[in-house]
Amino acid sequence: MDYRIEKDTMGEVKVPVDAYYGAQTQRSIENFRIAQDTNKMPLEIIRAFAYLKKAAALTNFEAGVLPKEKSDLIGKVCDEILEGKLDQYFPLVVWQTGSGTQSNMNVNEVVAYRGHVMNGGQLADKEKFLHPNDDVNKSQSSNDTFPTAMHIAAYKMLVEVTIPGIEKLRNTLAEKSQRYMNVVKIGRTHFMDATPLTVGQEFSGYVSQLDHGLRAIKNTLAHLSELALGGTAVGTGINTPKNYAENVAKHIASLTGLPFITAENKFEALAAHDAIVESHGALKTVAVSLMKIANDIRMLSSGPRSGIGELFIPDNEPGSSIMPGKVNPTQCEALTMIAAQVMGNDVAINIGGATGHFELNVFKPVMIYNFLHSARLIGEGCVSFNDKCATGIEPIEANINKHVNNSLMLVTSLNPHIGYYKAAEIAQKAHKEGTTLKEMAVKLGYLTADEFDKYVIPAKMVGEI
Amino acid sequence: MDYRIEKDTMGEVKVPVDAYYGAQTQRSIENFRIAQDTNKMPLEIIRAFAYLKKAAALTNFEAGVLPKEKSDLIGKVCDEILEGKLDQYFPLVVWQTGSGTQSNMNVNEVVAYRGHVMNGGQLADKEKFLHPNDDVNKSQSSNDTFPTAMHIAAYKMLVEVTIPGIEKLRNTLAEKSQRYMNVVKIGRTHFMDATPLTVGQEFSGYVSQLDHGLRAIKNTLAHLSELALGGTAVGTGINTPKNYAENVAKHIASLTGLPFITAENKFEALAAHDAIVESHGALKTVAVSLMKIANDIRMLSSGPRSGIGELFIPDNEPGSSIMPGKVNPTQCEALTMIAAQVMGNDVAINIGGATGHFELNVFKPVMIYNFLHSARLIGEGCVSFNDKCATGIEPIEANINKHVNNSLMLVTSLNPHIGYYKAAEIAQKAHKEGTTLKEMAVKLGYLTADEFDKYVIPAKMVGEI
Amino acid sequence: MDYRIEKDTMGEVKVPVDAYYGAQTQRSIENFRIAQDTNKMPLEIIRAFAYLKKAAALTNFEAGVLPKEKSDLIGKVCDEILEGKLDQYFPLVVWQTGSGTQSNMNVNEVVAYRGHVMNGGQLADKEKFLHPNDDVNKSQSSNDTFPTAMHIAAYKMLVEVTIPGIEKLRNTLAEKSQRYMNVVKIGRTHFMDATPLTVGQEFSGYVSQLDHGLRAIKNTLAHLSELALGGTAVGTGINTPKNYAENVAKHIASLTGLPFITAENKFEALAAHDAIVESHGALKTVAVSLMKIANDIRMLSSGPRSGIGELFIPDNEPGSSIMPGKVNPTQCEALTMIAAQVMGNDVAINIGGATGHFELNVFKPVMIYNFLHSARLIGEGCVSFNDKCATGIEPIEANINKHVNNSLMLVTSLNPHIGYYKAAEIAQKAHKEGTTLKEMAVKLGYLTADEFDKYVIPAKMVGEI
Amino acid sequence: MDYRIEKDTMGEVKVPVDAYYGAQTQRSIENFRIAQDTNKMPLEIIRAFAYLKKAAALTNFEAGVLPKEKSDLIGKVCDEILEGKLDQYFPLVVWQTGSGTQSNMNVNEVVAYRGHVMNGGQLADKEKFLHPNDDVNKSQSSNDTFPTAMHIAAYKMLVEVTIPGIEKLRNTLAEKSQRYMNVVKIGRTHFMDATPLTVGQEFSGYVSQLDHGLRAIKNTLAHLSELALGGTAVGTGINTPKNYAENVAKHIASLTGLPFITAENKFEALAAHDAIVESHGALKTVAVSLMKIANDIRMLSSGPRSGIGELFIPDNEPGSSIMPGKVNPTQCEALTMIAAQVMGNDVAINIGGATGHFELNVFKPVMIYNFLHSARLIGEGCVSFNDKCATGIEPIEANINKHVNNSLMLVTSLNPHIGYYKAAEIAQKAHKEGTTLKEMAVKLGYLTADEFDKYVIPAKMVGEI
Repeated sequence: MDYRIEKDTMGEVKVPVDAYYGAQTQRSIENFRIAQDTNKMPLEIIRAFAYLKKAAALTNFEAGVLPKEKSDLIGKVCDEILEGKLDQYFPLVVWQTGSGTQSNMNVNEVVAYRGHVMNGGQLADKEKFLHPNDDVNKSQSSNDTFPTAMHIAAYKMLVEVTIPGIEKLRNTLAEKSQRYMNVVKIGRTHFMDATPLTVGQEFSGYVSQLDHGLRAIKNTLAHLSELALGGTAVGTGINTPKNYAENVAKHIASLTGLPFITAENKFEALAAHDAIVESHGALKTVAVSLMKIANDIRMLSSGPRSGIGELFIPDNEPGSSIMPGKVNPTQCEALTMIAAQVMGNDVAINIGGATGHFELNVFKPVMIYNFLHSARLIGEGCVSFNDKCATGIEPIEANINKHVNNSLMLVTSLNPHIGYYKAAEIAQKAHKEGTTLKEMAVKLGYLTADEFDKYVIPAKMVGEI
Repeated sequence: MDYRIEKDTMGEVKVPVDAYYGAQTQRSIENFRIAQDTNKMPLEIIRAFAYLKKAAALTNFEAGVLPKEKSDLIGKVCDEILEGKLDQYFPLVVWQTGSGTQSNMNVNEVVAYRGHVMNGGQLADKEKFLHPNDDVNKSQSSNDTFPTAMHIAAYKMLVEVTIPGIEKLRNTLAEKSQRYMNVVKIGRTHFMDATPLTVGQEFSGYVSQLDHGLRAIKNTLAHLSELALGGTAVGTGINTPKNYAENVAKHIASLTGLPFITAENKFEALAAHDAIVESHGALKTVAVSLMKIANDIRMLSSGPRSGIGELFIPDNEPGSSIMPGKVNPTQCEALTMIAAQVMGNDVAINIGGATGHFELNVFKPVMIYNFLHSARLIGEGCVSFNDKCATGIEPIEANINKHVNNSLMLVTSLNPHIGYYKAAEIAQKAHKEGTTLKEMAVKLGYLTADEFDKYVIPAKMVGEI
Repeated sequence: MDYRIEKDTMGEVKVPVDAYYGAQTQRSIENFRIAQDTNKMPLEIIRAFAYLKKAAALTNFEAGVLPKEKSDLIGKVCDEILEGKLDQYFPLVVWQTGSGTQSNMNVNEVVAYRGHVMNGGQLADKEKFLHPNDDVNKSQSSNDTFPTAMHIAAYKMLVEVTIPGIEKLRNTLAEKSQRYMNVVKIGRTHFMDATPLTVGQEFSGYVSQLDHGLRAIKNTLAHLSELALGGTAVGTGINTPKNYAENVAKHIASLTGLPFITAENKFEALAAHDAIVESHGALKTVAVSLMKIANDIRMLSSGPRSGIGELFIPDNEPGSSIMPGKVNPTQCEALTMIAAQVMGNDVAINIGGATGHFELNVFKPVMIYNFLHSARLIGEGCVSFNDKCATGIEPIEANINKHVNNSLMLVTSLNPHIGYYKAAEIAQKAHKEGTTLKEMAVKLGYLTADEFDKYVIPAKMVGEI
Repeated sequence: MDYRIEKDTMGEVKVPVDAYYGAQTQRSIENFRIAQDTNKMPLEIIRAFAYLKKAAALTNFEAGVLPKEKSDLIGKVCDEILEGKLDQYFPLVVWQTGSGTQSNMNVNEVVAYRGHVMNGGQLADKEKFLHPNDDVNKSQSSNDTFPTAMHIAAYKMLVEVTIPGIEKLRNTLAEKSQRYMNVVKIGRTHFMDATPLTVGQEFSGYVSQLDHGLRAIKNTLAHLSELALGGTAVGTGINTPKNYAENVAKHIASLTGLPFITAENKFEALAAHDAIVESHGALKTVAVSLMKIANDIRMLSSGPRSGIGELFIPDNEPGSSIMPGKVNPTQCEALTMIAAQVMGNDVAINIGGATGHFELNVFKPVMIYNFLHSARLIGEGCVSFNDKCATGIEPIEANINKHVNNSLMLVTSLNPHIGYYKAAEIAQKAHKEGTTLKEMAVKLGYLTADEFDKYVIPAKMVGEI
């Protein structure tokens, strides 16, 4: 491969001749040969950097510390990054310095060098029109840019992928809940037969879980909307112009269309990432909900002949390479695997969040990597589950009716009439002798057949609908 | 030991002659010999049951399904439970049925039998004035009472122990932050020397963490304020009088003085405990914050002679059984151990929350056990850390001054004047040759001594205070 | 309460007049008011200290650094501790200094003062016959005694409670496996009907899980058998006589009857507790196994009329406070809650283990607290599950036969005869039209009825038994 | 894009015209649009499938159930997969069916269709020479192939990447330990000054941690060496020829050069993945060790002027985009981030492992994805840390000497001479008055200066080296 020579404060480095990045990116490639194929710094972070570099250039220009020409040029390269044109020049991995300095410098270098070329220069020029540190990184530090990029990327992913995905699934389940609100079925507690409810009621619980989960996520957006930018090296804002923090946050809000504000305390914003921890706590709450919902649906659709078999779910693919004709709840499986992953990611984030020291948390990349992973998995997992499974769910009424009518727990209706103890005796003896409740109630002399029919009506046991 | 015979629907059981509990409690003692010495069902749950049983009795009376005499009697026993007079009669452990049925029945039995005795009866009487199921448990199920008790106990613990404890520590740290706002010290990023900030600024970050943590906890109270009561067996409210759910929630709110309401969806409220998962997610966020804060303080107070030594913390006890005169940051250690515990508890809660099936989650006891454990540890841990450590923190100015004045990172002030690269050269050469920055700056000819003194003033590097 | 005055190196402290402990224990009570009711330092640790203090006294005597009279007296008090006679004098909590110094001093004080009284002295005497530091703690530090106590307590719990508990359950399951080796039942994969196996085969999988789990635990015993004692303050063994480490380990091995040896590296033994992390990793592997096994059993016993209903499990208690006659898989629930707890404890232990610094890990109490909790829960949980559930398991053959004979997945037997695709067609069409496989196979003309009967025999589909 | 039509048992599917895969792979692409850019099924699993498909073909041929021509052809395609020539045809993601059926079918399809082309056929041919199910998957099921591929991939990664990586770092640390065995330094417990040890002793603790960690990993290899293959659909081995399981394991062992054997119990091998849980438990133990080691090294190298500064570590890159000349412990940061990730992955694996049902665990992909992630990160992370940091570590003796000579904890040497209490008095007063120990010892009249010099010699306080 052909190389050119680039320099940083530590000396010369060989860089691929046509790469827009420079010495520090190259050093990181060589210094961190860890999972380079699969664990690249998420592109969402690169894009978030593009927003903030553009916003910083604008703010610097307005503050009089950067010429308009340079500010414009920086903005143009950032636009290219946002369009995905320069993705190949961001080769660094998650497992680098914990401040993300190298990814910040990667962006600084690409913006500077691509800008230089856009400005008519050549990559081989010793002096470039834009300087990675003095121009592109002006009024910034990795220590405030990287956490700013974390919040931008996290917030965007939540509102663009995660929340819409959950809402889509929530709406489908709500529609199913309404549609099947009068289909009476057996309830199950402890995995055992219990008193009846309706399919719609059962699904309303899932909807309520997701509604609460959505609220939980949204409750965390305020903390995520706080941006560290303007804190620079340690939170004091050294080397920033007046009102820089507030102004740059406004530009970022404007560029992204999202309500970002400057962090109320920059020392926290660099040294801790509790907003990420808190917000991911809401994501794992949703993961917990999804595990429950997907498990229920796979169990309710089990069979087809020797399971519970109360729900039909769509057949999307042959289920087995050896058992012909088998169909499996594969979307439930993908979603529950996602839930397990998110619960694991939560622990990685907690440990990263808890292990910051003094003025800087240096687990930034691992925290945002896991956050974005979870946020995408939940969002896309919900859409997949929705489109390929939930929308096609239908009750299998034959089985539903058989189960509810057989149930010994219908006896609960008798409590107010004959007391818990006699009711228990009826159920226990009916179970032991294999009779119906009615037969046993009459046999024991506690009720007449008519009384039984009057008191025990599954459809009346489900409350107000 | 002397026994009497009690009966339930499965037959006769020998019960200690003077125990207020009955057959089902005794069965549970015998069936679950697991950590009986150390893992009792938390008393907070028992107390919460007392509130709800009293509220249910009142509501039942008002609905005309329970005579006033019985309702009053139930209320009186509940008052005794709340006063702690009957603690010894709640011997059951966490590791029982996952619905907490046995603890619900334990309460039902104690209320019924103690009420019978208060009413002039004897424990040996075959028929008692109050029936555990038909009277005390009227219009209830374990499936809605236990989760109601979970929310009452969790909410109370948060507002009585956890939040006040965090606030106490937060206020002390805020007071320290203000008092030492002008003490300029070296910043540290990556555990390495960085640009200066003040002690007060550093502490303001801790305050901000706890402020956000408090908000995070408070954001979860709304979900916790929803009570399952009225859902009975599967969420449909079978065997409850009209408007029971709303009315019983009002009574609980009134008795506890806390803003409890009936859950918007009872199916969720029985089948999932996402409110516990969500709220504990906030607790673990605070644990993450406390780990950071306590680590910082122990490291900043390290020494006394060969560490960082910038903070004085109180000497509370001899620190070593072998090293005479040693003093250790023991409160930091207790608090960081608590943080580790809370992060572990979070996983137990997640798994429990995710593993409910159909109409009932049967990981209730393990979930609330871990929740209350965390909530108490954080609250009492913060108070202990506050009273025995934080209030006594003082800066050690001699060390602070030495460190900040020595720092090579003061060079950062020169960026706007000579550029990042020349500034780097000064710092690197000063480091290599062991000189001061000023000596090297002058030697390299980049600035005069006067210029250096004008540009590099630690107290001017800390931004607006 | 009446007090006496005790002194340590920091001054005077009021101690309950008849308490055997002294100033440092009292300081800890006052300094750590955190969960004092429920989170006492486990008695297993106190007992382990008794072994090691006695062993140290013997070794010190043999090395000529402690008079026989004192050594004997220390041994006598340790014997009383082991007999449980002094439990009330160990009031300290887990949430103390992370080295466990205060619990070490608690033991030192109790041994010294109780020894003084046994020797004819009085608690009020200013000078005592035994000195907590100079005699009882001779040749020791908290830093090596506490981790030694951790390993003794952990090892003992594993071999006395955990392993026997798992083995008991394993043996019952093995007995069930053999007894029901020929009961052919439907298999279930993806919770869906699959090809048959036998009940005995299914249970053999559980046995194999526990066998591997037992091996996994036993693989960790070697690391746990290494004792830190002799490392004293930082691992160098300062202030110990010659060969002390080897000799004291021999005494501990002899007193406990367990194969303890001196740690091959004392620096690791103080600064890290990877043995605890590693061994608990095996415990959580077993927790994972138990979750699977208990879930299977509760699902297979679900019903009684509208579930899977293939296994009978014993009815131990009324299952519901509202649904008369209900029986629930409560032992499965307790065991799965335990599994959740152990998986949570694992995270607390990991964080504690990972957060040691330099020569000492100061998360010792939280690590051993969680370890012992898990080890006891698994051991006692397995015994409870065994005695109250597993021993009573029986197949419900009527349901088993119905399920297996209905299954469409018997079609798999036809693959070698007609190929996967035609077999799939038979199964799919039989499912759609609600016929038997045989009817559809003949209808489609792929086989004669005789051929079908020859190829599709559930009992021949289960392989060699 | 141009398509051709492929068929499976559910009907026709459009497949890219020149893709070697078929209908089921295409269905999975369309059904699981979840993180398709970043979460591909790991190539290690694809390669492992190549080994097992080749081994199965050989075994089937030898058993007389597959013609030699087909067996050979299958083997040839597998060789191409192993050479990485067909990577682009494995587009599926982790988030698919939990049995990995779709990846098994992906391999079956690629082998069949590529084999067909190698045999002179065309992708567009309706009938292919090899059938994905009837030939390539002969005597197999996804349910036994996927877990077999899991064990092959996991075992190979451990012995090829993880263990060598750890050993490399272990050896470097051992070399440093020996080289600096006589450099006396201050010990630190509770992050506070303690008695001395040597740099070499400190490093020997790290070596011991890794030695134990390596043993822990190796202890789990036996369980991982057990292969599920031969269990087919539910563990009974339906549709396999005689002795197939043993023979195919031998072929896999021979092809991989690793000691694989057939699993002692196939029911466990399909329904549970405790071997993965157990083995990852060892990986997280190593992660815990690495967190400790990397933390120590970053803290010991902190400074350069206002930290601890006892170790020099190499400068690999400019450390700050704003602070000129700053160098950071970036390799420590990458390694500790990896440790956090591995501890998180462990939880995902636990949950997956615990949530299997009946005859099949359907969290296979998420489990192996996390396992391979951790195993690679630890292996490559150790190599990176070794090459770019550990090999360059050197003690900074000036600081080391200053720290040890200043330490008040040298007073510990006086315990045997004047007792713990007087020694404590010396240390406390020296601390308060800012004097040396010697000055205070003499001033208090407890020792002469000569006695002090005789008793207090740091180099004599480090024990036998």
